[in-house]
Amino acid sequence: MIIIGEKLNSTRKVIREAIARKDTAFLQKLATDQAEAGADYLDVNTGAFPEEEAQVMQWLVQTVQQAVDLPLAIDSANPAALQAGLEVATGGKPILNSVTAEPSSFRSVVPLALQYEVPVLALSMDEGGITKTVEDRHAVAEKLIEDLLAEGIPPQRIFLDPLIQPVSVQNDLGLIALEVLRRVKQQYPEVRTTCGLSNVSFGLPGRARLNRYFLVMATAAGLDSAILDPLDRELIDAIGASEALLGMDRFCKNYIRASRL
Amino acid sequence: MIIIGEKLNSTRKVIREAIARKDTAFLQKLATDQAEAGADYLDVNTGAFPEEEAQVMQWLVQTVQQAVDLPLAIDSANPAALQAGLEVATGGKPILNSVTAEPSSFRSVVPLALQYEVPVLALSMDEGGITKTVEDRHAVAEKLIEDLLAEGIPPQRIFLDPLIQPVSVQNDLGLIALEVLRRVKQQYPEVRTTCGLSNVSFGLPGRARLNRYFLVMATAAGLDSAILDPLDRELIDAIGASEALLGMDRFCKNYIRASRL
Repeated sequence: MIIIGEKLNSTRKVIREAIARKDTAFLQKLATDQAEAGADYLDVNTGAFPEEEAQVMQWLVQTVQQAVDLPLAIDSANPAALQAGLEVATGGKPILNSVTAEPSSFRSVVPLALQYEVPVLALSMDEGGITKTVEDRHAVAEKLIEDLLAEGIPPQRIFLDPLIQPVSVQNDLGLIALEVLRRVKQQYPEVRTTCGLSNVSFGLPGRARLNRYFLVMATAAGLDSAILDPLDRELIDAIGASEALLGMDRFCKNYIRASRL
Repeated sequence: MIIIGEKLNSTRKVIREAIARKDTAFLQKLATDQAEAGADYLDVNTGAFPEEEAQVMQWLVQTVQQAVDLPLAIDSANPAALQAGLEVATGGKPILNSVTAEPSSFRSVVPLALQYEVPVLALSMDEGGITKTVEDRHAVAEKLIEDLLAEGIPPQRIFLDPLIQPVSVQNDLGLIALEVLRRVKQQYPEVRTTCGLSNVSFGLPGRARLNRYFLVMATAAGLDSAILDPLDRELIDAIGASEALLGMDRFCKNYIRASRL
């Protein structure tokens, strides 16, 4: 499982405030904590600063990369902010988070992905928003993948997100995401899959537990990567246990070693 | 999820000894504890007494049914013991655990299931033992289901077990069971699926956690029932959480209510 640490996201009040007061120490600590906990990428989101998002993104990327050498997931709906982040990212090829099938997004993000030769996180939605059946969502995902491949982005650089929405809003939204994930992975084994995990539990009690069990289900359905909280020890343990159960951990060696810690 | 309580199994030393000394109070307490914890059926196994299995089964069934009114899963490879249990079971239609595709098993168990109009737990194995690929295991499961249907057993009375084996023995044994489960459920939506959950974690540390995560995966793959430990509170909670995540709990009502306890 490729773990994308979710903590440095300005939609969280504590992060928004830390960015606003340029609290380098606080933000760098969250970066190193996530890295030490096993994150493969760190998501950085500055969407709470729409007036000056490109500059804030550039500052945040530099701040984080001074502390950790991990690649980032540069998380913005604003192509200028994506580019600003790309220019100063130093910890290996970042992921552009995200592109959608909406023409304005597709036309502005794809050239950046090609120019910098970086992966893109592709959300299964188009100008009509997020569809609510397996067939429709899968059709959007399929078209987006085909369009990205046609532009010359290799399948390994596509992180397809089936879009997880809260089961508290509509009961079958978890199932839809799982089934789209399974179909995409069967159809395009080289394309990577990812998701924003914690959406599934929005509005319900016991969110950490729900997120954990959904991650276990999604891993069995073909999830390669997730944006999640790497500081949640039980969640990270669940990934290791799932990989052992799914034959992805030869002789269960990693699982057994982790159990001894 | 139809929960079959696993505790009253004579392959466990503590149960074997309790049966041997006719410790009615101990065995009845385990029966009522499982019933109170939410078991829908109680498994009763007397395989550790091969010389007198029919009599021991009859005694155990009567002992348990004096304490709880739940239906049982009469668990024996010996048709005489199955019949002895059937004759005295009073808590609703028991499940015959189990029948296989081996001719000797099939020929002796099916008539009992028809005569008593009870469900059968059908193990996906034949005279060649347990096959080790998805295709082979699925072929055995398919033939067994077809043969049971042809004998006149309705699909709702078939509990198909894909046979879970330890991932510590061979890494892909969990995956094989999950994939057979998924295929059987897609092919025969009315046939019920079940499994002996704890086999998956044999030989590994942290078994309760592995069992729990495998149950979550299997529920997403179409598991209707499992033989498990209903006294494991986290396991039972995981079932409720899984049902909420999979759209099987309208408005997540049961999950939310359980979270308040």
